[in-house]
Amino acid sequence: MDLLSAVLAERDRAARLFDRLREDGRNEPGVTRDPYGAGEQRAHATIAAEAAHLGLEVARDTAVNLYMTLPGRDRAAPVVVTGSHLDSVPHGGNFDGAAGVVAGLVAVAALRRLGVAPSCDLTVMAIRAEESVWFQVSYVGSRAALGALPEGALAARRIDTGRTLAEHVAECGGDPDALALGARHLDPARLRAFIELHIEQAPSLVEAGCPIGICTGIPGNFRYPTMWIEGSHDHVGLPRRFRHDAALAGAEFAVALDRLWAAREARGVAMACTIGRFHTDPRLHGLTIVPGAFHLSLDVRAYDPEALAELEREVAEIAEEIARRRGVRFDFGPRAAAAIGPVDPAVKAGLARAAARLGFPAAELGSPASHDAAAFAAAGVPIGMIFVRNENGSHNPREAMAMDDFLAGTAVLAGWLGEAVGQCLALRNVTKSAALSPPKRPTRETGRAFRRPWERSS
Amino acid sequence: MDLLSAVLAERDRAARLFDRLREDGRNEPGVTRDPYGAGEQRAHATIAAEAAHLGLEVARDTAVNLYMTLPGRDRAAPVVVTGSHLDSVPHGGNFDGAAGVVAGLVAVAALRRLGVAPSCDLTVMAIRAEESVWFQVSYVGSRAALGALPEGALAARRIDTGRTLAEHVAECGGDPDALALGARHLDPARLRAFIELHIEQAPSLVEAGCPIGICTGIPGNFRYPTMWIEGSHDHVGLPRRFRHDAALAGAEFAVALDRLWAAREARGVAMACTIGRFHTDPRLHGLTIVPGAFHLSLDVRAYDPEALAELEREVAEIAEEIARRRGVRFDFGPRAAAAIGPVDPAVKAGLARAAARLGFPAAELGSPASHDAAAFAAAGVPIGMIFVRNENGSHNPREAMAMDDFLAGTAVLAGWLGEAVGQCLALRNVTKSAALSPPKRPTRETGRAFRRPWERSS
Repeated sequence: MDLLSAVLAERDRAARLFDRLREDGRNEPGVTRDPYGAGEQRAHATIAAEAAHLGLEVARDTAVNLYMTLPGRDRAAPVVVTGSHLDSVPHGGNFDGAAGVVAGLVAVAALRRLGVAPSCDLTVMAIRAEESVWFQVSYVGSRAALGALPEGALAARRIDTGRTLAEHVAECGGDPDALALGARHLDPARLRAFIELHIEQAPSLVEAGCPIGICTGIPGNFRYPTMWIEGSHDHVGLPRRFRHDAALAGAEFAVALDRLWAAREARGVAMACTIGRFHTDPRLHGLTIVPGAFHLSLDVRAYDPEALAELEREVAEIAEEIARRRGVRFDFGPRAAAAIGPVDPAVKAGLARAAARLGFPAAELGSPASHDAAAFAAAGVPIGMIFVRNENGSHNPREAMAMDDFLAGTAVLAGWLGEAVGQCLALRNVTKSAALSPPKRPTRETGRAFRRPWERSS
Repeated sequence: MDLLSAVLAERDRAARLFDRLREDGRNEPGVTRDPYGAGEQRAHATIAAEAAHLGLEVARDTAVNLYMTLPGRDRAAPVVVTGSHLDSVPHGGNFDGAAGVVAGLVAVAALRRLGVAPSCDLTVMAIRAEESVWFQVSYVGSRAALGALPEGALAARRIDTGRTLAEHVAECGGDPDALALGARHLDPARLRAFIELHIEQAPSLVEAGCPIGICTGIPGNFRYPTMWIEGSHDHVGLPRRFRHDAALAGAEFAVALDRLWAAREARGVAMACTIGRFHTDPRLHGLTIVPGAFHLSLDVRAYDPEALAELEREVAEIAEEIARRRGVRFDFGPRAAAAIGPVDPAVKAGLARAAARLGFPAAELGSPASHDAAAFAAAGVPIGMIFVRNENGSHNPREAMAMDDFLAGTAVLAGWLGEAVGQCLALRNVTKSAALSPPKRPTRETGRAFRRPWERSS
């Protein structure tokens, strides 16, 4: 049996797991797998049960990450890890994160079906709490596993429950005290590589007509989750020259940052800038009151450390100029940052080779989003990522990943893993197979999917 | 006894009433005299008790407005009305509205002290529910008194209680059924004039160095209290070209309207534009989510009907252009509007003459804000307004009206009222009086009061 057939034979398992995970997190519209909460707990139970059913070794660490291992011939040899996170944003989609965990299980199941006896341990990891929207801390599970949880993270409070990360970890059976002492489950020196499959969170692969993409790098970022602007609450009748309108200052700030992004993009610099929260104070605002306080969050990301540092300087300058001109004060609040996650060139080349041998067109693209893989890269572990085409973005209920595209990405993952554990596998080329629909080219219909209903022009 | 001395003799009454009203509405920071609620009820009781103590006739209408009348020799002759509203915005100041009611009582008390027997009834009116922030309807009390409450107003719900205006009116002893049938207490044809004293809601009089101002006109407005912009909620990693960021569309809209205002101001067109509520959806927004929905309120005001209509056209064009370019949709929601309130030239001239004879420097200025007087103007009643210098704007707890300035405005009001009821009074000129501090000229210190603490430059 060839590898592609072995992966395609797992189609039902993948479909069943995705259906089950959707039920685990159902919270219309979309799914909510709240980290260290009911949604994520149910998803972990689903995945752990499947791993046990597959005969994998199941273990958990003090942060309650889940490890599902196909033992290698040499158990002391550095381990190959694949996986992703199971949590989601509130009312998110079913695939962001979970696809990487299901892909890991499916790839391992396919390798077992082929009778592969790996040279080293092959571990599928289901990671906790990747989505930073909940605790305003990113990569909680993966950094905890690596003993790299940032100072103070355990005291961070979940935005909805108001309870600390430590409390949530304890409720789910973890050991916050051990985490506070820097306990780690994974020694980076004992990891050969970390490979993460993830849905693309943008429609670039749809645009390019490729079912999968090979990641060229994960952006670093700087974040100010709780910025605010102090102006003066005044009567609606106040003439313009006397106003210190905090909301207008915020509006100018947002528009200036959008222009900065457009200018960088025109120069070919890859970056992204997002102001996700952007609001007057609901206790104080009103139709006839000039806003005296304005709150916002800022996330700026780029692939190059120097570009990122330059952006942060420019953001500060923009705020300063507006503050001076409008007589308002910018309070940036606490700063958070994530280092750039470089992809290992050998891993990237291996993934591209596997895709080529299997016959899947694969675009090379920088990840626009942050991923757990970046935490592994920061710890010095060689990383690689496979993106799967996805129609309607992520962090929303409209995620649309086709099963064929998922299986293509999983086949590339399995091909790379097989090579990594020293097994030379037969790789039937998809262009000679009828079991998978041929790679789609972008169509007029696909392009239209990104228009809003009220956009009339073609 | 001359008029100025008679007004100055009422200083203690004014101070006591303001102290009492502050206690009636105390809700730190500031005061909240919620219309048709506990705060406004207490204030009405305070004022009604004072009027009874002064021996005035006290009456209420179906909207629970309060009328306090010094009877005239000819009770059938058209009535002169003065007054203002007693409600405030949430956490507002003590003087916005209330100053005009206290001034009315003080002026009438001074005229009585001088033994004036007016030719016609002289009525002080304490008006209900002027602040539109509560029911999103402006001039509720004055329009109800004139039988001009707009269609549907009684069904409007107070933003905090969620209960309708009809329910609130009934709770305070009014008769919403009669109001629904168009009951009116005041026949515009039987009113000689309506004069309103009000604190200035901007520091223009501070800038000009005048204790009082004579109003040249009240702006009309158009309002969209519940606009929203529909874009697409997307993942923070979505490249710029795929985004439909509703908050950025809102930011561009706000900045464009601010530029429109600046350009009009440069051309000498008086107007104001305020976006008081300006916010992402708290249930959906987050650090790592591109905002797909954005909510805002809009209030645009001007003194000329054609300028106002032109502004509304331009606002629509700005929204259309942004919507087209960003692939978002603007939903303006329900529209509200108030007609321009022209000041009666004879009243204005009479107020200016009284100020000049008393020796108070009085600036002529357009009211930047809306006032109950505009409802009277709309009903065809000749109106006039006196503004009192006020340091820190209004609709905030920092309102700062000096008692001397208040008494100056009240003296002008009393002078005009005396003349209107056919009494020629002795008007001692303040420049020859030591009982009132001389009119202040703007000082460096005054100018600095409008700087924020973090503004370093002189």
